[in-house]
Amino acid sequence: MAKTAVSVRRLLFGKPLPSWRAAHERLPKVLALPVFASDLMSSVAYATEEILIVLVAAGEAALGNVRPISLAIVILLAIVVTSYRRTIFAYPRGGGSYIVSKDNLGTLPGLAAASAILIDYTLTVAVSIAAGVAAFTSAFQAYAPYRVELSLMAIAMVALANLRGLRESGLLFAGPAYLYIMSFLVMIGFGFGKMAMGTLKAPPREAIDVTSSLTTFLILRAFAGGCSAMTGVEAVADGVAAFRPPESKNAATTLMIMAVVLGSLFGGVSMLAHHLHIVPSETETVVSQVARAVFGAHWFYYVVQGATAAILVLAAQTSFADFPRLSYFMARDRFMPRQFANIGDRLAFSNGIIALWLLASTLIIVFHGDVHSLIPLYAVGVLLAFTLSQTGMAVRTIRLKGPKWRWNAAVSATGAFTTGVAMLVFAVAKFTGGAWIVVALIPTFIGIFLKINQHYRRLADQLRLPPGGRPVRPEMRNTVILLVPGIHKGILPAVDYARSLSPDCRAVYIEVDPEDTPLIEERWESWGAGIPLVVLESPYRSVIQPLLRYLEEVKKDRVRHLVTVVIPEFVPARFWHKILHNQTGLMLKWALLFRKDIIVTNIRYYLEK
Amino acid sequence: MAKTAVSVRRLLFGKPLPSWRAAHERLPKVLALPVFASDLMSSVAYATEEILIVLVAAGEAALGNVRPISLAIVILLAIVVTSYRRTIFAYPRGGGSYIVSKDNLGTLPGLAAASAILIDYTLTVAVSIAAGVAAFTSAFQAYAPYRVELSLMAIAMVALANLRGLRESGLLFAGPAYLYIMSFLVMIGFGFGKMAMGTLKAPPREAIDVTSSLTTFLILRAFAGGCSAMTGVEAVADGVAAFRPPESKNAATTLMIMAVVLGSLFGGVSMLAHHLHIVPSETETVVSQVARAVFGAHWFYYVVQGATAAILVLAAQTSFADFPRLSYFMARDRFMPRQFANIGDRLAFSNGIIALWLLASTLIIVFHGDVHSLIPLYAVGVLLAFTLSQTGMAVRTIRLKGPKWRWNAAVSATGAFTTGVAMLVFAVAKFTGGAWIVVALIPTFIGIFLKINQHYRRLADQLRLPPGGRPVRPEMRNTVILLVPGIHKGILPAVDYARSLSPDCRAVYIEVDPEDTPLIEERWESWGAGIPLVVLESPYRSVIQPLLRYLEEVKKDRVRHLVTVVIPEFVPARFWHKILHNQTGLMLKWALLFRKDIIVTNIRYYLEK
Repeated sequence: MAKTAVSVRRLLFGKPLPSWRAAHERLPKVLALPVFASDLMSSVAYATEEILIVLVAAGEAALGNVRPISLAIVILLAIVVTSYRRTIFAYPRGGGSYIVSKDNLGTLPGLAAASAILIDYTLTVAVSIAAGVAAFTSAFQAYAPYRVELSLMAIAMVALANLRGLRESGLLFAGPAYLYIMSFLVMIGFGFGKMAMGTLKAPPREAIDVTSSLTTFLILRAFAGGCSAMTGVEAVADGVAAFRPPESKNAATTLMIMAVVLGSLFGGVSMLAHHLHIVPSETETVVSQVARAVFGAHWFYYVVQGATAAILVLAAQTSFADFPRLSYFMARDRFMPRQFANIGDRLAFSNGIIALWLLASTLIIVFHGDVHSLIPLYAVGVLLAFTLSQTGMAVRTIRLKGPKWRWNAAVSATGAFTTGVAMLVFAVAKFTGGAWIVVALIPTFIGIFLKINQHYRRLADQLRLPPGGRPVRPEMRNTVILLVPGIHKGILPAVDYARSLSPDCRAVYIEVDPEDTPLIEERWESWGAGIPLVVLESPYRSVIQPLLRYLEEVKKDRVRHLVTVVIPEFVPARFWHKILHNQTGLMLKWALLFRKDIIVTNIRYYLEK
Repeated sequence: MAKTAVSVRRLLFGKPLPSWRAAHERLPKVLALPVFASDLMSSVAYATEEILIVLVAAGEAALGNVRPISLAIVILLAIVVTSYRRTIFAYPRGGGSYIVSKDNLGTLPGLAAASAILIDYTLTVAVSIAAGVAAFTSAFQAYAPYRVELSLMAIAMVALANLRGLRESGLLFAGPAYLYIMSFLVMIGFGFGKMAMGTLKAPPREAIDVTSSLTTFLILRAFAGGCSAMTGVEAVADGVAAFRPPESKNAATTLMIMAVVLGSLFGGVSMLAHHLHIVPSETETVVSQVARAVFGAHWFYYVVQGATAAILVLAAQTSFADFPRLSYFMARDRFMPRQFANIGDRLAFSNGIIALWLLASTLIIVFHGDVHSLIPLYAVGVLLAFTLSQTGMAVRTIRLKGPKWRWNAAVSATGAFTTGVAMLVFAVAKFTGGAWIVVALIPTFIGIFLKINQHYRRLADQLRLPPGGRPVRPEMRNTVILLVPGIHKGILPAVDYARSLSPDCRAVYIEVDPEDTPLIEERWESWGAGIPLVVLESPYRSVIQPLLRYLEEVKKDRVRHLVTVVIPEFVPARFWHKILHNQTGLMLKWALLFRKDIIVTNIRYYLEK
């Protein structure tokens, strides 16, 4: 059975990796991009649309704002990335918003950032997987009834790839990620070319109903909608330690590439959409409309669509890369169970991966795969984390006063202010739409983290050894009580063992039926190896009461003695045989568990059939 | 927690009784009657009706057959009781059909009888409780939706009374049982008196549709329907040992009283029903019709009805009296798990009572309290048991050739033949109506019993000690491996213990992160009490693999050594704290469970908060 378990494990995860290979498992930049940027990249598929959906409510003329808003987002991205670049160099062992906030603002902001991020990652996995599966099932309607099963399979696939290690998931996901980037670059290039030549024609569309006027609040909402395209930044900052050395430099470069790619794709799509006067539609995504206008029914249109569907599923990758790492940081600081600090067979943080897998799968099952309503929830989280992180960096910069500190602090402060405003707008706009859940969950999580921390601190206090070495203690002596359920072959190993433990050893027989006692005593003479036999009467037929009473007596006149109870135990050949035996040994073990000063040892006797 | 458990136990079951009180707990005849006869008595409530229901199909004229059929049943009862009287004297320690068949016909017939009886008892409890509750809910319609809950409560009540001991349940149920007998005797007496004076008038009723002609088969079916009124006979035969001494004599007398009472009540009701030309109705029972005709709307009519409802619930008592006892007999013979042979706190066979409680409750829940369809099933079982038991007695009488053996054998053979025919008629008539279930279950049960028996026989073979005493064996020596997870206060008790066990003792530290090792080694110097420390490298970060490898090595050069692994273990103050700790100790214990020659001892360290 144990062997099968090992084989299955090998098959799923590959051979265990020794600790010294950790350096080899680090990510080159070319793999780090798909591992950390999938979420970011995938947001290009919907960020422009999010802006347009908000703007369209204010009528045709308002749509023109897509360009300045997109520009503002790209500028904000530049600010955030600049700010995070400095974070990466300041925290070369990993510096996501949890670490930066905790380090510069205090424990509570740190935990708030961590809660927000952990919630977000869980939501991201559920939402992006469900979105990818929905894209697939809208093409292949026959699979629509199985969307929950398909989603669970997709989560399992991403989780298993991550359990095999970050490097492996990078290798697995690099193809679709680069295909996606390439196809979008081609689309934007062609689009701009056609635009320059004046051959890019807007598709025909219906008139728009104006349902709202263009208020500042509306613009802010459109802006905030676009902001959610920035989660990947956080993941890179946490994951510096996963890069090849020089870690910070490589991470910073990756972050820059990521920002440039994201800025180009997002800016490009927004500009094309604006030029084409595209209006968000119920039946076709903005990206699809743009691609169709650029390529017509050309096969490349389908490449763009396919790559978009793939990247939506892979967006979950970013969460799987960072959730376990953040959990590791928190477990190291004793805010999460220490199991999250374990490093698995493949040098991945297995427990964090498994936890995220289970949480996201639960969300999918609970919401029957229809997690659309969760989408508005997570912008609040990521924006809160950005705000806290950049505030932290600003505080730090002002405190340390390095070169150009004024300018740097201003950059961080601007980033913090902008993301902070976006967060507030989002939280207010979507409060009744579900954002209240996040607002309520964050304090709950902080409470749990603090409670866990308290436990570990109390534990450490209780386990602390006094200064100086071990005091000279009189040697403990051991009194052994061998429980004799009957005289048969199965107790012989226990007799041998009890005799070997201590010269102060006796056997105890509990007499339920006095008729049996003479025979037991006679046979013990032959088989008891000279250990004295004590017969305890049990008028109420209980095995436990007389034994406990006897143990009390034994302990009374043995102060510096430990008392070990040796219980012979059958191990039947087949599992179901267990129900055919009195579970006296087990019951005794349970009863003795509550006695602090008694040690119980089971000596097993294996039956062969 | 343990204290609360004890208090609850006391409250439910009363104080434990010492074994020497067993004789005091025996039943006087006056209590034995309600304990064993409830089922039998309750059958009067429906036996006449069962006959009439079959006969009415053949039209008005056929109804006259109720008298000869009832007479035949009373004669059969007399035969069976005569036969069982002899059984009781032949088997003074209990002689139900299981024991008699096994003793005289062989193991398989014995197990067949036992299976039939155990199935029957389970069905009887479910059916009679449900019938009693139905009688109650037809009077109080508001409770109808809760019939499952009410049934479960009623079963629990009877089961708990039995867990308090047979004597207690006798005391509890004697009132309703005697009230029932008295009220029926009064009804029959008044009825006969009025009949003699010619003032007993048949109530008006509708004409009858003839749907069938009066065939021999129909008469046999009517006869078999009435036969089910005889289960109590079996329970008395099994329960001889529960009577006050002289056991056989008292049991035989009780059986006679029971037969006379049953015969009188059943015969009386049948005669009155015949005289009144009563026809079974959908809306009113035969007994109710008789009582109404005798008393009119007098309050005594309600006494009869109330006592009938009570006795239907109490009919379950007979099963609770005999099922556990039969299980005890079978466990003693190693055909059922030996737990059924345990005697509980109150000198009752607690495990059998609990098993019957659970089985009957399951039936109630599975059938949503509508167990009416189970009624035809159990006549087959009881009749099979009667047939086997009486055949066994006939065989025994012929073999032993005591005084008047020819006559006695003829009585038993006649009983066996009659009940055998009745069983066949029932099995055929009701085969598709559910009797096939019993026919299929009996061989299944026999198979399970044989399998259990095989296990116990093999076990005994494996545990048998060779003849002669213990050979002189070289003394075993004990090598102790103390597992050191870290150096803190929690491991000190384990250090003390390990040192006390054997001079051949070493500590093992598994090095997951080599950076920690120097500190561990240094602190061990101060706290290790001189035990040598072995550091095991673990390049793959597993705790289990290096330890297992090391244990293999240790065992290789220690042939006559036992190896004890001592594992320090935290016991957190609160249960939820457990999830905050690596379950390394537990995992090691599991891994070592599969190593036959290694003994694991946990030394607990209790945290205070």
